[in-house]
Amino acid sequence: MTDLPAMDVAARTDRLRARFDDDGLDALLVTRLPNVRYLTGFTGSAGMVLVARDWSLLVTDGRYATQAEEQLAAAGARADVAIGASGLKQRDILRDAVRDGSRLGLEAHGVTWAQQRAFASEWFGHAELVPTEGMVEALRCVKEPAEVARIRAACAIADDALREVSALLAQEPSEREFALRLELAMRERGASGNSFDPIVASGPNGAKPHARPTDRRVQRGELVVIDFGCVVDGYCSDMTRTVSVGDPGPEARRVWDTVLASQRAGRDAVRAGVECAAVDRASRAVIDDAGWGDAFAHGTGHGVGLEIHEDPRVAATARGTLAEGHVVTVEPGVYLPGVGGVRIEDTVVVTASGAEPLTEFPKELVVSS
Amino acid sequence: MTDLPAMDVAARTDRLRARFDDDGLDALLVTRLPNVRYLTGFTGSAGMVLVARDWSLLVTDGRYATQAEEQLAAAGARADVAIGASGLKQRDILRDAVRDGSRLGLEAHGVTWAQQRAFASEWFGHAELVPTEGMVEALRCVKEPAEVARIRAACAIADDALREVSALLAQEPSEREFALRLELAMRERGASGNSFDPIVASGPNGAKPHARPTDRRVQRGELVVIDFGCVVDGYCSDMTRTVSVGDPGPEARRVWDTVLASQRAGRDAVRAGVECAAVDRASRAVIDDAGWGDAFAHGTGHGVGLEIHEDPRVAATARGTLAEGHVVTVEPGVYLPGVGGVRIEDTVVVTASGAEPLTEFPKELVVSS
Repeated sequence: MTDLPAMDVAARTDRLRARFDDDGLDALLVTRLPNVRYLTGFTGSAGMVLVARDWSLLVTDGRYATQAEEQLAAAGARADVAIGASGLKQRDILRDAVRDGSRLGLEAHGVTWAQQRAFASEWFGHAELVPTEGMVEALRCVKEPAEVARIRAACAIADDALREVSALLAQEPSEREFALRLELAMRERGASGNSFDPIVASGPNGAKPHARPTDRRVQRGELVVIDFGCVVDGYCSDMTRTVSVGDPGPEARRVWDTVLASQRAGRDAVRAGVECAAVDRASRAVIDDAGWGDAFAHGTGHGVGLEIHEDPRVAATARGTLAEGHVVTVEPGVYLPGVGGVRIEDTVVVTASGAEPLTEFPKELVVSS
Repeated sequence: MTDLPAMDVAARTDRLRARFDDDGLDALLVTRLPNVRYLTGFTGSAGMVLVARDWSLLVTDGRYATQAEEQLAAAGARADVAIGASGLKQRDILRDAVRDGSRLGLEAHGVTWAQQRAFASEWFGHAELVPTEGMVEALRCVKEPAEVARIRAACAIADDALREVSALLAQEPSEREFALRLELAMRERGASGNSFDPIVASGPNGAKPHARPTDRRVQRGELVVIDFGCVVDGYCSDMTRTVSVGDPGPEARRVWDTVLASQRAGRDAVRAGVECAAVDRASRAVIDDAGWGDAFAHGTGHGVGLEIHEDPRVAATARGTLAEGHVVTVEPGVYLPGVGGVRIEDTVVVTASGAEPLTEFPKELVVSS
C-alpha cells in the first residue's frame, strides 16, 4: 500500500471556502468525522474543524495531541491544531475562534439536536447559526484520481480475496466461516479492515438483503449472496456476487439471469450527465418486466468513498445527476422470502462515456460443479 | 455461544414507560440504533421505534422486512413492525401513529439537527417535540445478569485470544500482523467481530493513546500497548495490557509500576454508591504523585455494553454515581511523546462490595525473556 499516489488535501478546504458565498457563510464548523478526515487527514474518533475564510482550526482531545499534528503534517493540511481536554475546554477554544456576529454554518446532518442546542446557547451565542446540507459531501462526491486509486486498490484486494477463498464453498463451510476467511484474505493483502460487516447469506437467508452470517452451512444447489468490501487508506470497496455450488435449478437460474440483466442495464445507463434516478429506472425496469418488481425493495446503488454509503444515491427518489469522478455501486437484487435471494453489484467510476468498473471478479452463477 | 441465558427484552420497554411521567411524555421516538436493539432485539442498520404508552412500533425499510419480524419474535419484544420503503413512507406511517397534541420525546443526542427540523415541520407538526437526554441509556447502564453473561463471554474470549497469541511477540511481528492474529483468534472463538479497531502500539507509537497498528515491528526491550475487545451477541469487551519482550529498562518499569498501582487504586475505589469522579480521582492521584499527571490525558474509564463507550463515564468531570450492575472500565495510562506509553485496563462489574473483574489476563510487564 506504500505506492498510493499523494492526495492534495489542502486544496479541498479552498474548494469548500469557494462555496461559502452561496450561503453567505463566514465559517463552517465541520463535525462529521469523514469530513474532518477529508479536509485534514485526521483519523481520530473525536474532532471538529472550524473552517473560516482565512484559516482553519482542528480541535480534538488529549488522546490525539501527537497523532493530530503528525497526520495534518503528513497530509499537507493547512490547519492549526488545538487540544481541549474536556468539552468545556473545547467550547472555550471554539467560542474564542468564532467572531462576534459572524454567520457560522453547522452541518445539519452532522450535529445532534442536543449539540445544536448547546451551540446556540452556550458555545456560539455571539454568532448566527446556519444549517447547511452536505457542503463537504458535495465535494467528496467527485473523487480525485488519487482517491479513485485507493478505491481501486480496495476493490482489487476484494477481487483477489474472493478468488482465493471461493473454492472453499465446495467444502460447504458455514456462512460465518466463509465470511471470516474472506475478511482474513483481505487483511493479509493489506486492507485495514472491512468497509462493512460482510454478508454471506445462503439459501433462504439470502431473502434478507442485509443478513448477517450465521452458523448455517452453505449447501450444494443453493444460492449464496456474498456482499463485502474492504478499506485501503480510509477508502472503501463494495461488491456483491451471488453464486451456487452445483446447479441451483431453473427457477433460481431465472432469477439470477434477471438480476444480471438488470445489473448490466444499470451499468449501461451510467454516464456523466445522466440522472441518478434514470440509472435506478434502467435496472428496475428489467426486474419489473420479469414480474419481481415488488421483490427489489431497495435502491439500485450509492456513492462509495470514505464512507461505504455516501452521495450520490442511485434510487427512484434521488434528485442528483452523475458527474465524472463519481464512484457509485450498481446493485439490483431480488429477494423471495422463504426461498432466497440474488444480488449482483459492482463499484464503478463515472466517466464522460460510461462506467469504468473497479470490481472485476467474474459474474458466474455456478462456481463449482 | 448457544448457551447464553435469555434476556427479558420486553420488560425493558415497560421500564422505559415508567419514566415517561417524569417528562410528561406521551411517547418517545427511539432513533439511536443501540437503543433500538436494546428495546426490540432488531439489529438492522436503519430503524426507529415509537414507544407509546400502550404500544410500540418498529419502522424500518424493505431490506429488513423479514429480519425485523424474526428478530422481534426471537427477542419476545412486544412491538408491531411497519415497513416504509422510503423516508416519505416512513414519515406517513409515523405521522399517523402519533396522536394530535401529544408530547413526543426525541432523543436529543440521537437525532440530527436536520432530522429535528424535518420532524418539527413535516413529520410531527401536530405534536409537541420534547428533547430528552439518555432515557434508554440510563436503563442500559444497569446490566441484567444475562447481559453481564454476554460481556463476560466476550471478555473470556479476549483473554483466551491474548493467551494464544502473546507468545508471538517474541518473534517481533509488525503491529499490524499481531493485531490481525489477535482478531482472528477472537473470531475463531465465536466473537462476531471487534468491539473497536484494536490498538497495538509499540515503542514510541505507544505515546498515542489511540494509535492504529502500523507496519512497525515490535522490538525487544520496548513497551507494547495492546488494547482490544470483541463482541458477543452485540455486547462488547474491553481490555488493555502493556507488555515488553525482555527487560524494557528501569524508566519504563517505573512508569509501568505506577500505572499498575493507579489501575489497582481505581479498581479498589469501585463500589456501588461511589461517585464516578471519585474512581477517577483515586486512579489519577497515583499518577499525579509520581509526577506524570500531565501525561494522563484521558478519563479513567467508561461504561461498556451494547456500545464500547457508554454511560457511566468515569472521569474527573463525571457527575454520576456507580450502581450495582454497572459495567465499567478502569484504564489509566501515561503517555510520553517520543518515548512510549503504558495503559492497563480491566472491565469490571460494579457490586455492592466492590468490583468484579471480567477481564482476567495476567498483568505482567515482561512476557518473554
